[in-house]
Amino acid sequence: MNTNIRISDFKLGDFIEGFFIIKSMNIKTSSNNKNFIDFNLVDKTGEINAKLWDSNKDDEKKYSEGKLVKVRGNVSEWQGKLQLKIIKIRPANDEDNLVIDDYVPSAPEKTEIMYEKILDYIREINNKDIHNIVSYIFKESKEKLMFYPAAKSNHHAILGGLLYHILTMLRTAEKLCEIYTFLDKNLLFGGVILHDIAKLEEMDSNELGIVSSYTSEGELLGHIIQGINKIEKVSEKLNTDKEITTLLQHMILSHHYEPEFGSPKRPMIPEAEILHYLDVIDARMFDMKRTLESTKPKGFSDKIWTLHNRRLYKPSYQNLNEE
Amino acid sequence: MNTNIRISDFKLGDFIEGFFIIKSMNIKTSSNNKNFIDFNLVDKTGEINAKLWDSNKDDEKKYSEGKLVKVRGNVSEWQGKLQLKIIKIRPANDEDNLVIDDYVPSAPEKTEIMYEKILDYIREINNKDIHNIVSYIFKESKEKLMFYPAAKSNHHAILGGLLYHILTMLRTAEKLCEIYTFLDKNLLFGGVILHDIAKLEEMDSNELGIVSSYTSEGELLGHIIQGINKIEKVSEKLNTDKEITTLLQHMILSHHYEPEFGSPKRPMIPEAEILHYLDVIDARMFDMKRTLESTKPKGFSDKIWTLHNRRLYKPSYQNLNEE
Amino acid sequence: MNTNIRISDFKLGDFIEGFFIIKSMNIKTSSNNKNFIDFNLVDKTGEINAKLWDSNKDDEKKYSEGKLVKVRGNVSEWQGKLQLKIIKIRPANDEDNLVIDDYVPSAPEKTEIMYEKILDYIREINNKDIHNIVSYIFKESKEKLMFYPAAKSNHHAILGGLLYHILTMLRTAEKLCEIYTFLDKNLLFGGVILHDIAKLEEMDSNELGIVSSYTSEGELLGHIIQGINKIEKVSEKLNTDKEITTLLQHMILSHHYEPEFGSPKRPMIPEAEILHYLDVIDARMFDMKRTLESTKPKGFSDKIWTLHNRRLYKPSYQNLNEE
Amino acid sequence: MNTNIRISDFKLGDFIEGFFIIKSMNIKTSSNNKNFIDFNLVDKTGEINAKLWDSNKDDEKKYSEGKLVKVRGNVSEWQGKLQLKIIKIRPANDEDNLVIDDYVPSAPEKTEIMYEKILDYIREINNKDIHNIVSYIFKESKEKLMFYPAAKSNHHAILGGLLYHILTMLRTAEKLCEIYTFLDKNLLFGGVILHDIAKLEEMDSNELGIVSSYTSEGELLGHIIQGINKIEKVSEKLNTDKEITTLLQHMILSHHYEPEFGSPKRPMIPEAEILHYLDVIDARMFDMKRTLESTKPKGFSDKIWTLHNRRLYKPSYQNLNEE
Amino acid sequence: MNTNIRISDFKLGDFIEGFFIIKSMNIKTSSNNKNFIDFNLVDKTGEINAKLWDSNKDDEKKYSEGKLVKVRGNVSEWQGKLQLKIIKIRPANDEDNLVIDDYVPSAPEKTEIMYEKILDYIREINNKDIHNIVSYIFKESKEKLMFYPAAKSNHHAILGGLLYHILTMLRTAEKLCEIYTFLDKNLLFGGVILHDIAKLEEMDSNELGIVSSYTSEGELLGHIIQGINKIEKVSEKLNTDKEITTLLQHMILSHHYEPEFGSPKRPMIPEAEILHYLDVIDARMFDMKRTLESTKPKGFSDKIWTLHNRRLYKPSYQNLNEE
Amino acid sequence: MNTNIRISDFKLGDFIEGFFIIKSMNIKTSSNNKNFIDFNLVDKTGEINAKLWDSNKDDEKKYSEGKLVKVRGNVSEWQGKLQLKIIKIRPANDEDNLVIDDYVPSAPEKTEIMYEKILDYIREINNKDIHNIVSYIFKESKEKLMFYPAAKSNHHAILGGLLYHILTMLRTAEKLCEIYTFLDKNLLFGGVILHDIAKLEEMDSNELGIVSSYTSEGELLGHIIQGINKIEKVSEKLNTDKEITTLLQHMILSHHYEPEFGSPKRPMIPEAEILHYLDVIDARMFDMKRTLESTKPKGFSDKIWTLHNRRLYKPSYQNLNEE
Repeated sequence: MNTNIRISDFKLGDFIEGFFIIKSMNIKTSSNNKNFIDFNLVDKTGEINAKLWDSNKDDEKKYSEGKLVKVRGNVSEWQGKLQLKIIKIRPANDEDNLVIDDYVPSAPEKTEIMYEKILDYIREINNKDIHNIVSYIFKESKEKLMFYPAAKSNHHAILGGLLYHILTMLRTAEKLCEIYTFLDKNLLFGGVILHDIAKLEEMDSNELGIVSSYTSEGELLGHIIQGINKIEKVSEKLNTDKEITTLLQHMILSHHYEPEFGSPKRPMIPEAEILHYLDVIDARMFDMKRTLESTKPKGFSDKIWTLHNRRLYKPSYQNLNEE
Repeated sequence: MNTNIRISDFKLGDFIEGFFIIKSMNIKTSSNNKNFIDFNLVDKTGEINAKLWDSNKDDEKKYSEGKLVKVRGNVSEWQGKLQLKIIKIRPANDEDNLVIDDYVPSAPEKTEIMYEKILDYIREINNKDIHNIVSYIFKESKEKLMFYPAAKSNHHAILGGLLYHILTMLRTAEKLCEIYTFLDKNLLFGGVILHDIAKLEEMDSNELGIVSSYTSEGELLGHIIQGINKIEKVSEKLNTDKEITTLLQHMILSHHYEPEFGSPKRPMIPEAEILHYLDVIDARMFDMKRTLESTKPKGFSDKIWTLHNRRLYKPSYQNLNEE
Repeated sequence: MNTNIRISDFKLGDFIEGFFIIKSMNIKTSSNNKNFIDFNLVDKTGEINAKLWDSNKDDEKKYSEGKLVKVRGNVSEWQGKLQLKIIKIRPANDEDNLVIDDYVPSAPEKTEIMYEKILDYIREINNKDIHNIVSYIFKESKEKLMFYPAAKSNHHAILGGLLYHILTMLRTAEKLCEIYTFLDKNLLFGGVILHDIAKLEEMDSNELGIVSSYTSEGELLGHIIQGINKIEKVSEKLNTDKEITTLLQHMILSHHYEPEFGSPKRPMIPEAEILHYLDVIDARMFDMKRTLESTKPKGFSDKIWTLHNRRLYKPSYQNLNEE
Repeated sequence: MNTNIRISDFKLGDFIEGFFIIKSMNIKTSSNNKNFIDFNLVDKTGEINAKLWDSNKDDEKKYSEGKLVKVRGNVSEWQGKLQLKIIKIRPANDEDNLVIDDYVPSAPEKTEIMYEKILDYIREINNKDIHNIVSYIFKESKEKLMFYPAAKSNHHAILGGLLYHILTMLRTAEKLCEIYTFLDKNLLFGGVILHDIAKLEEMDSNELGIVSSYTSEGELLGHIIQGINKIEKVSEKLNTDKEITTLLQHMILSHHYEPEFGSPKRPMIPEAEILHYLDVIDARMFDMKRTLESTKPKGFSDKIWTLHNRRLYKPSYQNLNEE
Repeated sequence: MNTNIRISDFKLGDFIEGFFIIKSMNIKTSSNNKNFIDFNLVDKTGEINAKLWDSNKDDEKKYSEGKLVKVRGNVSEWQGKLQLKIIKIRPANDEDNLVIDDYVPSAPEKTEIMYEKILDYIREINNKDIHNIVSYIFKESKEKLMFYPAAKSNHHAILGGLLYHILTMLRTAEKLCEIYTFLDKNLLFGGVILHDIAKLEEMDSNELGIVSSYTSEGELLGHIIQGINKIEKVSEKLNTDKEITTLLQHMILSHHYEPEFGSPKRPMIPEAEILHYLDVIDARMFDMKRTLESTKPKGFSDKIWTLHNRRLYKPSYQNLNEE
Repeated sequence: MNTNIRISDFKLGDFIEGFFIIKSMNIKTSSNNKNFIDFNLVDKTGEINAKLWDSNKDDEKKYSEGKLVKVRGNVSEWQGKLQLKIIKIRPANDEDNLVIDDYVPSAPEKTEIMYEKILDYIREINNKDIHNIVSYIFKESKEKLMFYPAAKSNHHAILGGLLYHILTMLRTAEKLCEIYTFLDKNLLFGGVILHDIAKLEEMDSNELGIVSSYTSEGELLGHIIQGINKIEKVSEKLNTDKEITTLLQHMILSHHYEPEFGSPKRPMIPEAEILHYLDVIDARMFDMKRTLESTKPKGFSDKIWTLHNRRLYKPSYQNLNEE
């Protein structure tokens, strides 16, 4: 039996034991009319579906989302994906002497530090109106930013993922402004910081950065429109210049680029154009990096839904190269 | 020579004289390097392009958009469309004893009366929050509503066209609520009245209901987003229930139905679904009625751009039938 | 145990007993190599899949499609949908003292009455040719119209669904003619009555309005072409005016509007345009009404396949409003 | 001056004289307010637009569609296409001693002979029902088949073009049946002969095979539906087996293959599948052959609208090869 | 029990015994945590999924892909497809006295003979450059051509399928050249022989013509690009005329016709156009023939994925006809 | 009269004089049957169409593409675009004392220097195989790289445009590798340098960087396939590792990303993904910068074809900001 194994190391047929966080759980009835619990478990390295067959009322009360549990089980396969058949499970307790943070999938930098670094970028915005509106909204959102992911299940669906996504994009934005010097840094930094800010209202996340569902308003309007609404109200309050308000709203409106992805207007200023590419590049690099980490050299990954169902290839030569 | 002829009666080869309004005018240089004025003239019945060749500085000053002029000319053809070659032109004067309103293409009902009829519909909205927000925005917009068309060049591009479009849709909405009784009249009436209200900010219209261009904000955001912004601000001011605000915004957001036509979300409540169809039906009926009025029985119209380039057919039997 | 419970009230984990109609049944072999019967059961309120495990030859003979049965079972879940595990089942018998009509999902009005009401509309058609052809086809189809649904599994898949669909559309058509007065009532009423009439040939329905399959001709040609064929033959017989025949065929041909939904020609007369919208609106309202009936206030429905996979939202305010 | 030159040999700047047929003519007014006649002239080799400037009433009466004229003029260019400026024009007269057939663009085989050859194919159809219906319709259409083209302006828009299209497809069909021996020759030959037969009703052609316009019924229904109607009526008359009727209708219905090209059903029998490819191949080969005839070796043709705007390449090696 | 039954004759509920080839096998773990072997078995007539439940290490070693086995089992159904529950299985042995070739799904002609027939076609290519390059590549590929299929799972996924596909297309090409005499036989034959030749590098096939996977290069480039690369290198070696090389590469590049199917250029010479249709027709006829062989007269097949999910219809009249 | 004026400063109605380069010229015949020369003139700042009416044989010989001319003329307008009516024109001569380079639209850095800078990047490639192949192809192409543009008429259609495009992308690539540190610099730099290298074979450019047409091979294969061919041959010569060759070919193959834009495979390695975005961003920034340079603050540009027909907006606030 492999103990203290990480999810990304699970292989078909393994008999494992370790600590994991319950990302979600549902009580269901099997075809033989008995209850079972359908878990999604995570640790820092990945996620796996797990079944506790023939569960009883007791089990159903003992566990809940966001809790750390110790699990023993067998790794099987269902429709091409690994699955865990739970043999033994119990809640973690004080004697286990664990810090939950060690099990939460989270951004590679601390949220407090990322928050401060983004404030530094805000300080560089030297147009008063843009500075004020961005600063106001960013600071007002601090509490949620400390844990929100950038998505429910795609790229950056990790604790602190939204801050990490913003920060990486700011770093790239800064560099692109050195190449394409006619770009306006104020608008671009402002757009980067605000482009996904309404994800804080679109999704419901717990403090581990796990999103269980979308809000009603999120379903009916979506984060693009919610972000525009937020700017509209804050601009009113701060008495922001009308053109600035419209430009920031336009950047948010157009950042998905294609109408069928939610942007009824395509970018009409170069800063909005760049904002779109910063966003796509960061999402793609995140997904590709993660995918290739679990792909063997000279091998192909599974089909990745978020990448138009492409399979990725991991060259063999890189390994040689790094030696 | 046909005097006092209406534009819809022009035929190739006619030698005509009559009064028309200048919808737009541009001074251009011809291939033989002389200036000419390129007019678009309208009357109640239609629109025609007209050229004043070899114009001089004097001419260029004497005329401007929105003015009534007396024109004599020949009806020729250019790329399949009728065109007027101006032989003589002068501004209308007091002695002509004309009322400009008789020449403006305009809605079949008076704007003051349509405005009042819509107020009657608003009175029927018995949800306090919807009533207040709709009433506030509608009354606040009164001045522009008195002349704005519903579009720059498509359906309802006539003086009072926006009010007429709203009023006709309200009449149909009322009737559909008698058939589909589970529909909420409050939401539906509210949605109809607000769905295009931000066209007042999207387009610049003169007091004859002629739109020369879109506003910058209109280009960058569009009337759907501008309408949502307006509701956001007014809701804040009136302290409107959050769900009501979101539902009205959702109706505006989804009323074009397809992402590629500007609606990032499709309708999620039946009232939003119906709003979309009321809008399309009214636009289509307006365009089809106008097209068939100038089509001969048993004949086909030209291809109509706003109708997916379809040609319409006018049956012969209807004529017999009406006798 | 819940006895006499309706399908729309089933909840996961329920232990229920009640009477239902067998919509379809198939004998299958399970992975453990035993036979089981795979039922779809319906009552007035809905439909559910049900399994009778380890069935024997006796069971397989005792039941057949369209029969009323008494069932006891447990409500479980399979791939996100409720499913019934049958514990006990028997055919209904005389002592149960039941009327099958009380269990058939059916239109809210009686078919005989709907048939008469449509005849009233036909009487209003005052063009002789249209009147005769519509009247002939409608009366000729009476027998099947008494039970046919309008679809196999989408909107109006209920006993008398086709008549109900036609009647509701006629009511709306009548009202729209009051708004858009240039529409020809004869053509529009005729088009509404005939637009889906060949569904009687496209699908095979039993007398409970349950469609088991499409006919060969229905698969190879489809109800649009079959309807055109029917008009072709009846026109020949009644010596109908050629233009009238063509216009009615055109209305049927174009009523799905988009080529990819089966209409090679888009509407070229306003009555055909309106016919399309009447059809869509009635289908959508039917599906939305039914969906919202089983959705909780402030909640979202499941994704509805027939509505582009949208989820519907049920506002909370309506409830307050209705008090 | 080049006399008796053929249209396909016209070059920019030529001063030419020759005999041509008036395919169409329209009287228009130029920007300097004078009438001119806008001709399309054809001969066996091609088509060219020609202008007779400053025409008078006399000219307008003297010429009409389908007439042979003698023309002298200059070959100029307008928007990338050659155009003829007419210097002198007169109707051909008896002294010219010409046979109009020598000037009509027409199929490479005589219509009478093609008609007989197709009858031979019909004799090979040994299913009685298919034979009878195909034979009946083909013979009934003889008069029009003697001159009808297969299209207004695309492939086979030549005198006898429809017969030539059918005959070539039959020859290919015969050969494919030798390769794919499971194909049913009766159905396939029947489908080939009937697939475009209703073009005789869809278009109005004069006896030179020149189509001026579509019929009303053609616009409202199209030749696919009109062909199905024809089969419906003839089947009724001949008491044809129902399945045969449906299969022939299905073949016509599906022969454009894609819904957006007019086929609401895709082929469900192999003979319908093959029919589609026979049709496309014959149209493509016709257009490609004609295009390459006027392309220089190692050169590219203009963009061909009927070939998805492709340009064709003419290899140089073929010339060497043929020596 | 049916012994020596062929897969295409399996029916739900059958208890069968026979010899089959293991096309693929995977060891999996069931939901009750026991290992089972998931086989795909084939014989000359078809393919079926089969499960050996509760397998042990011994079983897992005894079987491997490409081996002949004797199987006894029950035919059940899973998600609408037949499946075999294995009761008894053992490897075939010498005493069974079997020839594996009798069990491999393979082309109707022997590969050696097909290879020779294609050489005959190559001899007919009388352009030296084309002849040499085609001959070189074809002969160089002989070893693999002796068993390679034309696809992993679609049309011609049989032993010798690639040769059979090429040969049938050559036969049709020959016949089409008799109809469309301006086609260049050299180019067309060359294109047919080379169009799919790089499938030998794109896929990994065992000697039974069973493809287990794509090669890395096949995934990253695809057989169209790989084929172009092959021509590039061989042309260099044979010092082929540049235009010939480009034309052959163009034919390969464009033979899928649509960009979304892998052809960035559409055909620009008629031989490339015809090549595409030869390819499609042969694939479709193969799939349709096979599908109809297991469809009952007057019945419809299942939906065929490779045919846009169409169902095929098998007419009843053919049977009568053949008597 | 404005003398020595630059094309980007032309305004409707201007009477101008200056020196320009003939980008292209065609002799045409006007509707009044006289010859005229249709020029496209360029200078460093832009391009304009110009007409020399009533030209004679002498004129036609005196001028040719790539020559510097002195022109006097009037700026008029044709279909919304400025056009020059030439009053006087003559070739530039020695006494004008001009350097043609001052009139050629060209990259902002000298080609020799850009060439050297790219060599520096090549030196950083520390994988031997990638280094050798990239170095070989880049050096072999030096002559043409000294003047080739990156396109015929879109982005970077300037002298040295291809080098400038490559160099800017390398600079951005370098910076992105600092952010996304898992990217392989060798592959990415190699891909950037080779991605468009076959444009040197796809287009024919004169030494002023003006492309008159595509080559035959360019039309039939396109620069993506031509680039892959080049790598294939050079790899053979340099005996490059097979995987490296395939990866570089894959990067070229996938760099247009969408099949309909010429990439039959989408990127399967992150370096290919980034290559695509580097390419798009550089093209977009080039076009946007140039467009905004001639747009007034608070104004919109014309619709830009290369930007999905979008109009760009130039904010007013930037101007204030820069003071």
